[in-house]
Amino acid sequence: MVKRRIAEILRSGQPDESILIQGWVRTKRELKGFAFIEVNDGSSLASLQVVMNQNLPDYEAIIKKLNTGASLEVTGVLVPSQGKGQRIELKAEMVEVYGEADPETYPLQKKRHSYEFLRTIGHLRSRTNSFGAVFRVRNACAAAIHQFFQERGFLWVHTPIITASDCEGAGELFNVTGLNLKDIPRTENNAVDYAQDFFGRPTYLTVSGQLEAEVMAMAFSNVYTFGPTFRAENSNTSRHLAEFWMVEPEMAFCDLDGDMDLAEAFLKHVFKYVLETCPEDMEFFNQRIDDTVLATADNIINNEFQRLTYTEAISLLEKADVKFEYPVSWGLDLQSEHERYLAEQLFKKPVIVSDYPAKIKAFYMRLSDDEKTVRAMDILAPKIGEIIGGSQREERLDVLEKRIIAQGMQPEDLWWYLDLRRYGTVPHAGFGLGFERLVQFMTGMANIRDVIPFPRTPQSADF
Amino acid sequence: MVKRRIAEILRSGQPDESILIQGWVRTKRELKGFAFIEVNDGSSLASLQVVMNQNLPDYEAIIKKLNTGASLEVTGVLVPSQGKGQRIELKAEMVEVYGEADPETYPLQKKRHSYEFLRTIGHLRSRTNSFGAVFRVRNACAAAIHQFFQERGFLWVHTPIITASDCEGAGELFNVTGLNLKDIPRTENNAVDYAQDFFGRPTYLTVSGQLEAEVMAMAFSNVYTFGPTFRAENSNTSRHLAEFWMVEPEMAFCDLDGDMDLAEAFLKHVFKYVLETCPEDMEFFNQRIDDTVLATADNIINNEFQRLTYTEAISLLEKADVKFEYPVSWGLDLQSEHERYLAEQLFKKPVIVSDYPAKIKAFYMRLSDDEKTVRAMDILAPKIGEIIGGSQREERLDVLEKRIIAQGMQPEDLWWYLDLRRYGTVPHAGFGLGFERLVQFMTGMANIRDVIPFPRTPQSADF
Repeated sequence: MVKRRIAEILRSGQPDESILIQGWVRTKRELKGFAFIEVNDGSSLASLQVVMNQNLPDYEAIIKKLNTGASLEVTGVLVPSQGKGQRIELKAEMVEVYGEADPETYPLQKKRHSYEFLRTIGHLRSRTNSFGAVFRVRNACAAAIHQFFQERGFLWVHTPIITASDCEGAGELFNVTGLNLKDIPRTENNAVDYAQDFFGRPTYLTVSGQLEAEVMAMAFSNVYTFGPTFRAENSNTSRHLAEFWMVEPEMAFCDLDGDMDLAEAFLKHVFKYVLETCPEDMEFFNQRIDDTVLATADNIINNEFQRLTYTEAISLLEKADVKFEYPVSWGLDLQSEHERYLAEQLFKKPVIVSDYPAKIKAFYMRLSDDEKTVRAMDILAPKIGEIIGGSQREERLDVLEKRIIAQGMQPEDLWWYLDLRRYGTVPHAGFGLGFERLVQFMTGMANIRDVIPFPRTPQSADF
Repeated sequence: MVKRRIAEILRSGQPDESILIQGWVRTKRELKGFAFIEVNDGSSLASLQVVMNQNLPDYEAIIKKLNTGASLEVTGVLVPSQGKGQRIELKAEMVEVYGEADPETYPLQKKRHSYEFLRTIGHLRSRTNSFGAVFRVRNACAAAIHQFFQERGFLWVHTPIITASDCEGAGELFNVTGLNLKDIPRTENNAVDYAQDFFGRPTYLTVSGQLEAEVMAMAFSNVYTFGPTFRAENSNTSRHLAEFWMVEPEMAFCDLDGDMDLAEAFLKHVFKYVLETCPEDMEFFNQRIDDTVLATADNIINNEFQRLTYTEAISLLEKADVKFEYPVSWGLDLQSEHERYLAEQLFKKPVIVSDYPAKIKAFYMRLSDDEKTVRAMDILAPKIGEIIGGSQREERLDVLEKRIIAQGMQPEDLWWYLDLRRYGTVPHAGFGLGFERLVQFMTGMANIRDVIPFPRTPQSADF
């Protein structure tokens, strides 16, 4: 007997096929002389309806065990379904129960649970419809990302998680140490004696793989990272995680226009892929979570993103008939309210804002001839805000050194990064995508903690 | 003018095509009236030969700048090559130099450098033939892994990097903390006051995503992790990294035989994929690094792995006409010398040893009816030793609780892991693959530090 996944049976199973399935009970309905069992194996949102006739051996004993959450194996024959809601169902010939789930204690009963409650049972919540759909879509997003870059000849590069570099986000770094926190060794001057630590110096969890990705782009032309990054920011909001996944492509011989083109093609590709591979899950989100997600996906796939400069954006915001909490003027960073106005109200689609003031952006972004702006761009998505941030990188050694010093850093600390400009420097550009923000955007899930299997947030590192 | 990647030109470029390429100079050869420039863009081991005629505008000035490592853009026409070693070459019509590389200071001159030296310039070493080939093959291995699992309906799940669980590798864990190491807060009893730390408790870098992968397998049936893992083990060897990538599939409704079948199919798939996508790089490794890598790949793809139990392995080792440093007897863990004897000398191919003594294996492995062995398996590869370790997991609540207690741990600490056995437990199995070991195995590179872009080892966290 060939084992089959339920997604595939629901899609293409034919009457009279003999099959074997394995999964978990979602619901049980007992009628006179027979019972309907909805069995789910995680391959799809929909479950397969199994019909058990009372003539089956041990019918009573088995039915008693088949409560929500119990695991089982069923062999039987596919038959056309008489009932509503399914094309086909499985007439059981043999049912084996692997593990029961006591209805008195199993937390996932048929009723609807709040996401807050489900976060406290993170080890079980993937068994619900919502989280099943979220993590299937999350996987599809990830697969789409790899497909997009691999097809275009980009190498996936693994940049380091533990880093000695603290130049990008000082104050928001997690320390990594092999030292015993109960007994930190001291130098003669009473400083921490890092010489005794595992790496012989202070080390942190990375906040970005970009600088190392640039190293790799200077050898392979086109590369991308896709890995975990960290912020020790004490933000207890629905938008922040201490540990999240980032995607960071980096392209040699590429300017900001090429960067924006790639980012737009990238988002379109991912949405298309997910709609094609997870149509049922996306339909579910549209019905149950946010009735705009399908329209949003359509909008992204079929429209050009609106491109405008920061200076143009400021001008539009100044003209806007809206009272902003943070007043707008050239030189200030855009706040969430401004980003939302542009993407949601004014253009009603993703917006790419470019050429930000140099003062509010990172040292590595390429200074324009006006010496006031840098070749940076942010993609602002309706409801999510900034989903992608990118820039052309400063490839000129002298300009980069000046910018490093101006931001209070030591060029010596970045000797290897500067070497990239000393030896065979080229125009290059890249962007960063917060992967969980993308999954939120895709699914309409309101809280970022509900799109990653095991969220890490202040005071919370369960499971 | 359409920009082309050099790999693609070398594969399928045709005479008379007008093209544009961008890359870096590998070598320059000046002859009377013209020059040959080998240009590499990282897309392939081989470079494209560019022919520059002295009639080109600024010929002398440009040639002077085109030293090894300089970056450039060339437009021109493809012509059949008169020289040996290439089918086609590019007759330059315009050459633009982006960035020079001073031959007096640029560390990568034409001569061969030791891997030790190249590790000190990790930001440049990817520009060499060896590391170019290594990281293209590394990417191909990674792409093959995703392809293998995605095609089989496995979900890629992101298990947490920061974990509060210390039950798997106590003593070899990196601490993660938001506390200031210079000023660790204390409780009244002078213990570390973790209540003030970011997560409100001690946290570490993960050593494995397996337990969380089991959570996900209990909802989606088949999942895999592919992410970084960590060991704070002070091992300064060619086989150890403090930070490395692991692949950990986990399958519900699967026993140890299914686990071994999957692991074998998996390795065959990855080798096949890499041979197909990186034939030139693999040829390079076979010629320059280890003249057995192609034979090994062939062996893996075309032979069934040898399967035997630990008990059988011990018996074969006892009969072996070899003086082992560690004498063999039932109950002892296999040492590297034993593993190598089995894989390299006795069977001359990968060997799967299964059913190890319970005492030397982890608590979560399924106890067999003999109550002496567990359903564990290791795949031992010639020259590499253990490349995959897997097991069927203990799915019986009572047995698992006893094993946890027997190993000196607290069942309460693993309440969520035990819940998986309380509610809908199923037979399940999985394995772990050290990704860098796989890349070593594939390429023949002797030191594990040379198959990851930025190695993390004791006293070393550069770049």
